[in-house]
Amino acid sequence: MQIACPEASGAALRTVQTHESTAALVAHPGWFCPFSQRAWIVLEEKKVSYQYKETNPHTKDKNFLAINPKGLIPVISHKGVNVSESQVVMEYLEDITGPDVRMYPADALQRAVARMWIDHIAKKIVPCFFRVLQAQEVEKQRAAETDLLAGITDFVNAMDPGGPFFFGDWFSMVDAFIAPWMMRSEYVMKHFKGFDMPQRGSGPVWSRWWTFVEAVQTRKSVVDTTSELEHYLPNLQKYANDTAQTQAAKATREGRDYS
Amino acid sequence: MQIACPEASGAALRTVQTHESTAALVAHPGWFCPFSQRAWIVLEEKKVSYQYKETNPHTKDKNFLAINPKGLIPVISHKGVNVSESQVVMEYLEDITGPDVRMYPADALQRAVARMWIDHIAKKIVPCFFRVLQAQEVEKQRAAETDLLAGITDFVNAMDPGGPFFFGDWFSMVDAFIAPWMMRSEYVMKHFKGFDMPQRGSGPVWSRWWTFVEAVQTRKSVVDTTSELEHYLPNLQKYANDTAQTQAAKATREGRDYS
Ligand SMILES: N[C@@H](CCC(=O)N[C@@H](CS)C(=O)NCC(=O)O)C(=O)O
Ligand SMILES: N[C@@H](CCC(=O)N[C@@H](CS)C(=O)NCC(=O)O)C(=O)O
Repeated sequence: MQIACPEASGAALRTVQTHESTAALVAHPGWFCPFSQRAWIVLEEKKVSYQYKETNPHTKDKNFLAINPKGLIPVISHKGVNVSESQVVMEYLEDITGPDVRMYPADALQRAVARMWIDHIAKKIVPCFFRVLQAQEVEKQRAAETDLLAGITDFVNAMDPGGPFFFGDWFSMVDAFIAPWMMRSEYVMKHFKGFDMPQRGSGPVWSRWWTFVEAVQTRKSVVDTTSELEHYLPNLQKYANDTAQTQAAKATREGRDYS
Repeated sequence: MQIACPEASGAALRTVQTHESTAALVAHPGWFCPFSQRAWIVLEEKKVSYQYKETNPHTKDKNFLAINPKGLIPVISHKGVNVSESQVVMEYLEDITGPDVRMYPADALQRAVARMWIDHIAKKIVPCFFRVLQAQEVEKQRAAETDLLAGITDFVNAMDPGGPFFFGDWFSMVDAFIAPWMMRSEYVMKHFKGFDMPQRGSGPVWSRWWTFVEAVQTRKSVVDTTSELEHYLPNLQKYANDTAQTQAAKATREGRDYS
């Protein structure tokens, strides 16, 4: 599969340009990839020294399969080991950085709470996004929208009520894990599928949700890893037509959850 | 759904009996549940002080839903917080115990390797077990068997060649994560579906696999959390007929992966 636009743009391009020189830790993300953006946000939050190497996972070329036989981005290469799976990469970045840039709570029980909600985002929110986007029949789209709103409602009800972030005024792994899906739920699904999230006035859940979305979307690490919005659309067009041939698109087409 | 046999038997029953008194950490497992056994193995390995409360998740009674609204076991209740999802529970138990009973590698990169293979077991091995067991047509069963063997082959190729465990002579979270599926792959699928795993003589992968299986199955923590084999069968009969109504069975029936 071709990536319509081969590289990051806007604020994300400026971030790429400041991470072109070699570094011990090499990140292999795709500018368009929400799973990559999670890891990229964490690299930026923690001010890790890293080299950014734009990677198209769809070519499946030999060099890429050598660093991840599963053919997926993101991958982080460090000290001769290749770490894949966005959640594993995030845990790794937490493990190699100090308590001053902690993104999981210091308390073990609160850390477990963070991981439970990360699991919830992976199982109950992300797959619904693909289902809404790829639905070709109205009833299927409606069913996916209902599941998405239910998944978000449970998540919002678990948030610190004051906010703005999941744990209050502190930006954590939970926020980074869902961050790339904010723009997609608000902009991409509306653009392709006419799907509007319930607005602030729709009740306390949605008022809390939008407080969260605004705080996450304006967070520097999120802004600095986001390209110009219109460039995301050509790749996602294939999902909206249900003709994309990625692992995510195929799984969703077969009725399986992807995350 | 009724659990045919309401409580553990054999070695597992003896373990239950030594954990009946109150303790600060309360485990809510089901003796028959492979996801629960993962957490139980870790409790036993680490010699955590815990109270065992046998839990039937299928009743969905109010008290149970109060500790896990998702209606799934295992749950660990500690200091007023309820931790669910077997992998999250395992991370939590690692976080609250000392380096002398460590079950993740001390090195951050090796810890990432452990988590990548845990992700692999969750995504590429466990769902295949349910697919084989619930298949009602020969072709479907064969396709699930092929995927299962491919998932196991990749896993075996990543193991320490000497073994017997994933990381060599050291029993880790990776071993605990897959342990409950050993008996199921060897005994349950054979019993219900006539499925035999390739034997030792079938090549180096299978020779390494059986070395692993034997070491895991005779590990004290695994033995001490395993009930008498025949008691597992009545519950699993409903999976084999594809009439079970659990979340795992429904997801698998709809063609979705469960883990
Ligand atoms: N579970 C993976 C998913 C990563 C993923 O699906 N990445 C996409 C790009 S956004 C990819 O590499 N696709 C290549 C393919 O589907 O062949 C993670 O969390 O890192
Ligand atoms: N992803 C969960 C799965 C747990 C699970 O499915 N447990 C089963 C028992 S083995 C359960 O509670 N089933 C209740 C139901 O399906 O309603 C984990 O890893 O803990």
